[in-house]
Amino acid sequence: MKRVILIKCPDAKGLVYKFAKIFFENSLNILKQDEFVDAENGIFFLRTEVVGDTDYDNLKNLLAAEIDPTSEITIVNPEQRKKVLLFATKESHCLGDILIRYDSGELNADILGVVSNRDSLASLTARFGLPFWYIPAVEGADRVEHEKLVTNLIDNLALKPDILVLAKYMRILTPYFVSKFDSKIINIHHSFLPAFIGANPYKQAYERGVKIIGATAHFVNNNLDEGPIIAQGVVPVDHSLDADALRSLGKSVEKTTLSKAIDLALEDRIFVHGNKTVIF
Amino acid sequence: MKRVILIKCPDAKGLVYKFAKIFFENSLNILKQDEFVDAENGIFFLRTEVVGDTDYDNLKNLLAAEIDPTSEITIVNPEQRKKVLLFATKESHCLGDILIRYDSGELNADILGVVSNRDSLASLTARFGLPFWYIPAVEGADRVEHEKLVTNLIDNLALKPDILVLAKYMRILTPYFVSKFDSKIINIHHSFLPAFIGANPYKQAYERGVKIIGATAHFVNNNLDEGPIIAQGVVPVDHSLDADALRSLGKSVEKTTLSKAIDLALEDRIFVHGNKTVIF
Amino acid sequence: MKRVILIKCPDAKGLVYKFAKIFFENSLNILKQDEFVDAENGIFFLRTEVVGDTDYDNLKNLLAAEIDPTSEITIVNPEQRKKVLLFATKESHCLGDILIRYDSGELNADILGVVSNRDSLASLTARFGLPFWYIPAVEGADRVEHEKLVTNLIDNLALKPDILVLAKYMRILTPYFVSKFDSKIINIHHSFLPAFIGANPYKQAYERGVKIIGATAHFVNNNLDEGPIIAQGVVPVDHSLDADALRSLGKSVEKTTLSKAIDLALEDRIFVHGNKTVIF
Amino acid sequence: MKRVILIKCPDAKGLVYKFAKIFFENSLNILKQDEFVDAENGIFFLRTEVVGDTDYDNLKNLLAAEIDPTSEITIVNPEQRKKVLLFATKESHCLGDILIRYDSGELNADILGVVSNRDSLASLTARFGLPFWYIPAVEGADRVEHEKLVTNLIDNLALKPDILVLAKYMRILTPYFVSKFDSKIINIHHSFLPAFIGANPYKQAYERGVKIIGATAHFVNNNLDEGPIIAQGVVPVDHSLDADALRSLGKSVEKTTLSKAIDLALEDRIFVHGNKTVIF
Repeated sequence: MKRVILIKCPDAKGLVYKFAKIFFENSLNILKQDEFVDAENGIFFLRTEVVGDTDYDNLKNLLAAEIDPTSEITIVNPEQRKKVLLFATKESHCLGDILIRYDSGELNADILGVVSNRDSLASLTARFGLPFWYIPAVEGADRVEHEKLVTNLIDNLALKPDILVLAKYMRILTPYFVSKFDSKIINIHHSFLPAFIGANPYKQAYERGVKIIGATAHFVNNNLDEGPIIAQGVVPVDHSLDADALRSLGKSVEKTTLSKAIDLALEDRIFVHGNKTVIF
Repeated sequence: MKRVILIKCPDAKGLVYKFAKIFFENSLNILKQDEFVDAENGIFFLRTEVVGDTDYDNLKNLLAAEIDPTSEITIVNPEQRKKVLLFATKESHCLGDILIRYDSGELNADILGVVSNRDSLASLTARFGLPFWYIPAVEGADRVEHEKLVTNLIDNLALKPDILVLAKYMRILTPYFVSKFDSKIINIHHSFLPAFIGANPYKQAYERGVKIIGATAHFVNNNLDEGPIIAQGVVPVDHSLDADALRSLGKSVEKTTLSKAIDLALEDRIFVHGNKTVIF
Repeated sequence: MKRVILIKCPDAKGLVYKFAKIFFENSLNILKQDEFVDAENGIFFLRTEVVGDTDYDNLKNLLAAEIDPTSEITIVNPEQRKKVLLFATKESHCLGDILIRYDSGELNADILGVVSNRDSLASLTARFGLPFWYIPAVEGADRVEHEKLVTNLIDNLALKPDILVLAKYMRILTPYFVSKFDSKIINIHHSFLPAFIGANPYKQAYERGVKIIGATAHFVNNNLDEGPIIAQGVVPVDHSLDADALRSLGKSVEKTTLSKAIDLALEDRIFVHGNKTVIF
Repeated sequence: MKRVILIKCPDAKGLVYKFAKIFFENSLNILKQDEFVDAENGIFFLRTEVVGDTDYDNLKNLLAAEIDPTSEITIVNPEQRKKVLLFATKESHCLGDILIRYDSGELNADILGVVSNRDSLASLTARFGLPFWYIPAVEGADRVEHEKLVTNLIDNLALKPDILVLAKYMRILTPYFVSKFDSKIINIHHSFLPAFIGANPYKQAYERGVKIIGATAHFVNNNLDEGPIIAQGVVPVDHSLDADALRSLGKSVEKTTLSKAIDLALEDRIFVHGNKTVIF
C-alpha cells in the first residue's frame, strides 16, 4: 500500500524524528520525503510518500498525538483516482486540453463532467462521453441564485469533487461557494499576476507595451485574482502583436499553466498557507 | 484583396526599390514588409503583405522580370484557407491539440483528415468529424509499398494538401515521398535537436542527466532528424524525473512547439534555404 | 559609408516605394530593412541599414520632403561610438556588468563616467579608469537642487551623453531632468512591470507568493515605473526563497535585462511611441 | 552551530528514521531536509541543514555506523567560506562576472586567484586585488608538463582549493589533473550539451539553424564535454544572427549559467553520481 502523507503544523524541535519514528515503527518505507519550514511564521510542512501495510487511521492518530490539535494531517491513497469537476464558459482551449489529456489516460483523474453557464461547449464535452450541465444565468437572478443551482447539482448527484477546475469559467464565485470548496477550486487567470488584474488583461498588456505576457493558475479565494498562486507561465512578445494576437498567443500559455497546476493538485503536492502555496 | 508575396532570389543592388516600384505602380499598399539578406550566400528574402486590386498573375511576371530565373516568387491569398493533412500513430497529445484548435476555429486551416499506420486514433479523429485513413504497415511489405498506399490515397481523393503534419507519426518517410512534398512536411521531434538524435530521446536525456529538455519542429528532408528547424521549445527538469516523467513533461513542449510551427507555415512566414529557415 | 536611417511618420500609401526610390537614386544599397505600421494610430516606422557614399544631409532633406513635417528622421553613423553616462547608487551588479562588458570591448560605446549620490562605487569605477562624480544629496536640499548639480556637471564638462543609464540609481528624477533627456534615460526596474510597482518589489513578490520573478528595462518618463518598456526578463522561483533570496536571484535577471536594453539602444533599434516601444 | 550534512549511501529501509534519531539524540534541530532515492540504482541521497552544538566528528561516526562503509558522509560548516581557484584564458565575460560578484560580497567564497595560460586577463584580475598566475604553455611542452606547473603552484602555495572554476579556460585537462580534483572542477561549455560537443559550437549552431542556443555548466571528467551537468541555460535566437552574434548573445547565458552552478556548489547542494548530479 502506497500513501502520501501531508502534515502542516507549528514548527517544533524533533518533528522529523518523531514522524520518522512513527513511520518506522509502523513498518513503513519512505520513498520520498520533502520538508520545509516557513521560519517567518513558524510553520512546518512535510510531504512523505510511504509504502507499507499498516492501519492508516491509527497512524493518523499517532501522528496527531505528537503535534498541536490545529495541525492538518492528510493521508491520501495515490492509486485512488481523484474526481475533477470542470467549469467552462465559451473558450475551449483549456477545456479541450484537459479532455485530450483525459482521453489519452495522461490525466490521472476521473472527470465528473462540465458545468457551464453557456451551451457553447456542450458538443465538445459530449464527444468525450462526459456529462455537460448547462446552467444558464437567468435574467434578473443574481450570482447566489445561480450558484444555488450549481450547488444543488453537485449535491443531488453526489458528485463529491476533489478538485474544481475553472477552465475559462467567466463568472465570479460567491464567498459561500468558495468557502464550501476551500482550496479546491483552481482558476486560470489570463495574465502574469499580479500584473493586469481584472478584465481584459491582453488589452491592458497591449496598451502597456510589455515584452512578455503570461498566465497564472491559482486557488480561488474571495479576493478576485488574489488567491494562492500554484503555477505561472510566460511567453515573449513584441510590438507587432495586437491585443488579439496576444490573446491567441496567451491561450497556449494558459492551457499549459493550468494543466501543470492540475497535475500538481492531483499528485497532492500543494500546501496552501495564507495567500501562498508550498509545492513539493 | 490581400496578398502575401514571398520572394527569394540572388541578392543585388536596388531590389527593394525595384519591387516597391512595381507594388506602387500596381496601386498596392504595403501593410507589412520584412526583408533579410543572407550575406554569406548572397540570397535576398522578402515577405510583403499587400492590399490592393491588381492582376496578380501579371504582377508575378513583372517581379520575375527583374530577377534571376532561378528565383522563387510566391503570391498567396491569406484568406484562402490552406489544406492540412495530418499523420499520427498512437500518441494523441499533438493530434488532440491540433483538433481542439481546429474545432474552436483557432487553427486557420481546413483539415483534410488523419492518415495513420495504426487504428488507435480513429475514434478521436471521428469525434471531430474528420476522415481517418487507416493504412496499416503490412507484414513483409517495405516502406515504399506502404507509402504507395498513402500516395494513392492522396492522389485518388485529390486531397492536394498544402501542408503535411507528422503529429507523432512513428514511421520514417522515403526520399520519394519527401521529395514529392518538398518543404511541406512538418515533423515534431521529441528532443532539443541536434541533441539526442534518433530513438528514445527521453531515455537518452535521462541518462545524460540534462537540466533542460526540449522539442523541435522541423521540415522533413532525407536525413533523419536533420531537416530545417522551424521552432524549438524547452522546459527545465531535474534529477527527480525519470525517463517516463521526462516524456510526460515533454509532451506539453511537443504540442506547443508543433502548433507554433504549424501557425508559422499557415501564415506563410517561413522560407527554406538549404538546411535552415528564415522566418518573418 | 554605413548609415542607419530611422523614420517615424504618419502612415500613407507608397511610403516604402518613395523612400526606396530616394535610397536607390542616391546609390545606396539596403543591407537590412524593417518596417512596421501601427494601424491603430496610423504611424509608420522604418529602420533601414544602408551602405553607400552620398550627401546624407541632403538625403535627409529629400526624405523629409516626402512626409509630414511632424515626422522624425534620424540618420546615424553606426561606426561612431555613442557616449554613455552611467548613474548608480550602492549596488554594483548592474554597473559591474556594464564595466566588464566595456572593458572587454563587448559594449560598443564610450563610457563618460559614473554619477552617484553615494561614494560606495567610486573604487570599482576607478579600477576601470573612468571618472566617478560623487554628488551627494545634501541634507535639506530637494531633488531639483541635487539635479542642478548633476546638470551642471554634464553641461560644464560638455559630456553630451547619447544615452543615460540608471544602473540601480536609487533616486527619482524630476520632470525637468527627464524632459531634458527625453527617451535617452534607460532604467532597470527590479520587477516584472506592471507587477510590483514601487518600493521593495522582491518583498512584495515574496508576500504574494509568485512563481516567477522578473526585471524590466524601460525609458524613464515622468510617471514612476511607467515609461516605455524596452526589455523584460524572468526567472522561475519557489516557496523556499525568502525576499533576500529573491533579491539575490533577481540581480542576475536585472543585469541581463539592462544589458540587453542598452545594446538595443546602442544599435539604434528602438522607436519610442507614446508609452510603448517599437523594436527592430 | 549550523552544519550541512550530506549522505550518499545504498538505499535501505528505515534510513530516514535512523538518521533523524541520531540528529535528535544529539540535540540537533533540522532546518531543512531533502532526500531522494535513485530507485534504478538503489542509492539514497540526503541533505540536511541542522543547527545545534554537538561533537560533529562523533556524529559522523554514529551516522557511518548505520550504513555501508562505501557510503559518503560529508559534514560542512556553511559559515566557513570556501576557497575558489579560477582558471581563464582570454575571454573576460565569465571571469568578470565572478569578480564583480566577489567584489560586492555576493559570492559567498574567497577567491584564491586566477591561473591562466595567457596574460590577457592579468590587469582585470589585479584590479580586484587578486593574484594572477600566468603559466604559459611552452612551445613543444605537452599538457602534462604544463599541468605540472599548475599543480606545483597549487601545492607550493598550499592553495587547497575547494572548487576549481574553468571560467572559459581553453585547455583540456589531463586525467591526472581531473582525478586529483575529482568532482571539484566546474566548467562552462558554450552550448546546450549534448548538442554541439567540441569546438566552435556557435558556428555549429549557426550552420544547423537552431532557434534556441544555450550553455552548460558541468563538472569535468575525463571525457571531453561529458561530465555531470550542474546547470543549463538557454536563449531564443533567429536567422538574422550570424555565428558572431550568436557568440555574443551566448556570453550572457554562459556567465549566468556558470554563476548559478558555482552558487549551487558553494551551498553544498550538489551530489555527483556517475555521470549525473542530484541537486537539492
